[in-house]
Amino acid sequence: MEETIIALASAPGVGAISVIRLSGEQAIHITNNCFKGKDLTIQKSHSAHFGYIVDGSRELDEVLVTIFKTPNSYTKENAVEISCHGSPYIVQSIIKLFLKNGVRMAEQGEFTKRAFLNGRFDLTQAEAVADLIASESKAGHELALKQLKGGVSSEIKELRTQLIHFASLIELELDFSEEDVEFADRTQLVALIQNIQRYLNKLIYSFEYGNAIKNGVPVAIVGKPNAGKSTLLNALLNENRAIVSDIAGTTRDTIEEVLTIDGVQFRFVDTAGLRETQDEIEKIGVEKALEQIEKSSIFIYLFDINELSFNQVENELNLLNTTIPFLIVANKTDLMSTKQFQEYNTQSNLECIFISAKQKSGVEEIKKALLRAIHTSAIENFDVVITNSRHYEMLVNTQEALKDVLNGIDLQITGDFLAVDIRRALESLGRITGDISTDDLLDNIFSKFCIGK
Amino acid sequence: MEETIIALASAPGVGAISVIRLSGEQAIHITNNCFKGKDLTIQKSHSAHFGYIVDGSRELDEVLVTIFKTPNSYTKENAVEISCHGSPYIVQSIIKLFLKNGVRMAEQGEFTKRAFLNGRFDLTQAEAVADLIASESKAGHELALKQLKGGVSSEIKELRTQLIHFASLIELELDFSEEDVEFADRTQLVALIQNIQRYLNKLIYSFEYGNAIKNGVPVAIVGKPNAGKSTLLNALLNENRAIVSDIAGTTRDTIEEVLTIDGVQFRFVDTAGLRETQDEIEKIGVEKALEQIEKSSIFIYLFDINELSFNQVENELNLLNTTIPFLIVANKTDLMSTKQFQEYNTQSNLECIFISAKQKSGVEEIKKALLRAIHTSAIENFDVVITNSRHYEMLVNTQEALKDVLNGIDLQITGDFLAVDIRRALESLGRITGDISTDDLLDNIFSKFCIGK
Repeated sequence: MEETIIALASAPGVGAISVIRLSGEQAIHITNNCFKGKDLTIQKSHSAHFGYIVDGSRELDEVLVTIFKTPNSYTKENAVEISCHGSPYIVQSIIKLFLKNGVRMAEQGEFTKRAFLNGRFDLTQAEAVADLIASESKAGHELALKQLKGGVSSEIKELRTQLIHFASLIELELDFSEEDVEFADRTQLVALIQNIQRYLNKLIYSFEYGNAIKNGVPVAIVGKPNAGKSTLLNALLNENRAIVSDIAGTTRDTIEEVLTIDGVQFRFVDTAGLRETQDEIEKIGVEKALEQIEKSSIFIYLFDINELSFNQVENELNLLNTTIPFLIVANKTDLMSTKQFQEYNTQSNLECIFISAKQKSGVEEIKKALLRAIHTSAIENFDVVITNSRHYEMLVNTQEALKDVLNGIDLQITGDFLAVDIRRALESLGRITGDISTDDLLDNIFSKFCIGK
Repeated sequence: MEETIIALASAPGVGAISVIRLSGEQAIHITNNCFKGKDLTIQKSHSAHFGYIVDGSRELDEVLVTIFKTPNSYTKENAVEISCHGSPYIVQSIIKLFLKNGVRMAEQGEFTKRAFLNGRFDLTQAEAVADLIASESKAGHELALKQLKGGVSSEIKELRTQLIHFASLIELELDFSEEDVEFADRTQLVALIQNIQRYLNKLIYSFEYGNAIKNGVPVAIVGKPNAGKSTLLNALLNENRAIVSDIAGTTRDTIEEVLTIDGVQFRFVDTAGLRETQDEIEKIGVEKALEQIEKSSIFIYLFDINELSFNQVENELNLLNTTIPFLIVANKTDLMSTKQFQEYNTQSNLECIFISAKQKSGVEEIKKALLRAIHTSAIENFDVVITNSRHYEMLVNTQEALKDVLNGIDLQITGDFLAVDIRRALESLGRITGDISTDDLLDNIFSKFCIGK
């Protein structure tokens, strides 16, 4: 790990400047050998110096070099950032020069991996770095930033510490196994485990929402043919096409059906059934609708107010028989007289949003309701939201191990068997934060990073 | 010019980090208002500080902020570089935050324009910044770097100063015009102007090569049908395809016929006549070949050693009657016995490279000869090489004005007329370095820059 590594840290391509990053014990020393300007080896940490990168007598570029001294750098190693002119040719020339001088190309995510291995942050925080870079919406970005600041791991570490306390007591019993003592109070242990389980359940439950927020909240719009689903979708989307940024470099492949409301991405997945012809939906029916609903975090049940009574709507919703939250939306109010409408409105206690998708009235209310549904059920309900499927998997594993511990206590099995299950739980928890890690795990995580990170 | 401006300075897109740049009197102050960390307003210039960019209580990103205090920054104004996570979403959020706080988006090239207006460098140096970013070969890059360091302008400024001296003496004569005195020694003036003319001629002459090196040296390969032109081109190109870099982000649209030899780009322009069928070339003949040659900095005359004698080659070359330098290359030596070859070789004093394009022998010698021809005639012959067509145009204008001055002296016209022409020359020279500039000129130059530069 003592090798000095180098990579382009800013995005590839032409720009005003490019930033090349080095890290490793020799980073400042080697940079100094390739630098015409002040003696970098005697400068303070976090200081920037103007000069030239030189290959012998040949000047490669006018640069600004910022040096960072261990442990006050991203990697906690000596580190250097070279800000050069933003030309791929110059970047290539400078990197080649350093490769000649005993530096090697960084692997993907190696800077962040070193930061993790040197204890700058734990694994969930390292993973948050990649999430931050990939974040595309305000909510996703906030979750990543929260995770970067250790939101997930601090609580998990706390629970793990408590569990370790009991584990050590039980392990102690093993040393005195012939004497049949119980250092670990079984009642307290059960209480602790149940406490941990409740917390883990909350985290596991949060994943669905966390994942939805990170990747966009999937929303299905279902309803009978001609209820106006496509019109509603267009009304929702058309009004919001203007969110495309006017700042250079923010282009991204927009999926037609993605809609960002107040920083939260909603993803109207374009599966069959959303925009199909009348014939098709007749064939597909309730089952198909259910399939879409089950993939969603929330769904919109849309109906033509001129065709269905509230009772019929209730019947339809009962038919669907799902636990996924939903909004009921009555469309085509424009085709109804005010009097009819007032009569209709008194029929039921169902909470319903009245719209005319065609006239784009009521669309804002749907958006507000979508936001409310997500915020209520997700961010505001959870102190910590799980967004990473690896964390989710480990949490589920922990939960299973804890269930086995509780079963074991129930069956009054001996401490040595309990210890095995507690260790399983500890290991799964430890893998989330990286307190326990393997090379394979780390390689797998960091290979998803970009080169200069 | 007091406004604080902002732009993404690194290349747009996803990377490990992105760099956002601010410049203006309020740059540090405004950044401090959006920063959670140390008080930036009391920090030293060229110091980097870890913290958070915050919009009220909401954290936008973990960043590293480097501050530069006037006059020690690129623009000579107070300046800030914010190194944030390399996500377009984050960059956009941060820039939007600053726009809300009284900063405005920078125009294209505005940072460099401010640097120029604040006297950090002259216009040729500002222009060199754009050339540096666009440079794609070692030679082009070296020319841009030389220009950035003031190579072009220092000599021009020196000549201009001398000319100004005479101009002022002549203007003085105008004040005493009734007394018929000559403060400006006409003989010395003629000597100075001739001296300047020689130097300007050299610069003007260098443009052809400077431009060639910046954009690639155009090379024509001419010769009779079946001389092996395509085979030679392939032999030259195929061996050099490996120059494509393995460093991420250096992709560029390679033109099939561009060949980089030892850092110099040669451009084998793929016009008709290089690869055409036999029928076509018969039709096109000498004129077409000449047309290609005149567009080249150097051309290769290729012939089949088994078909043409040296006398015939000399005749052919005389027919072309061009001043463009050339290499004579005898192809298909593989079809000739050693004895025949030796006889042939003694026939003439023409400097000739013998090759077998098919067997790829002798190709290296052509490359060396191409390099030699370029280096001899360009870089090594000129202290300063003109690469910019704007400079070229101004030099030609100056030259014309100076010719008029000499004519005037010859015709013994009065000082007031001489003064007009000298002023024309001074103005053209001054426009090169930006000692004289107009808003239009500056807008035109800096609009070619990228946004963050």
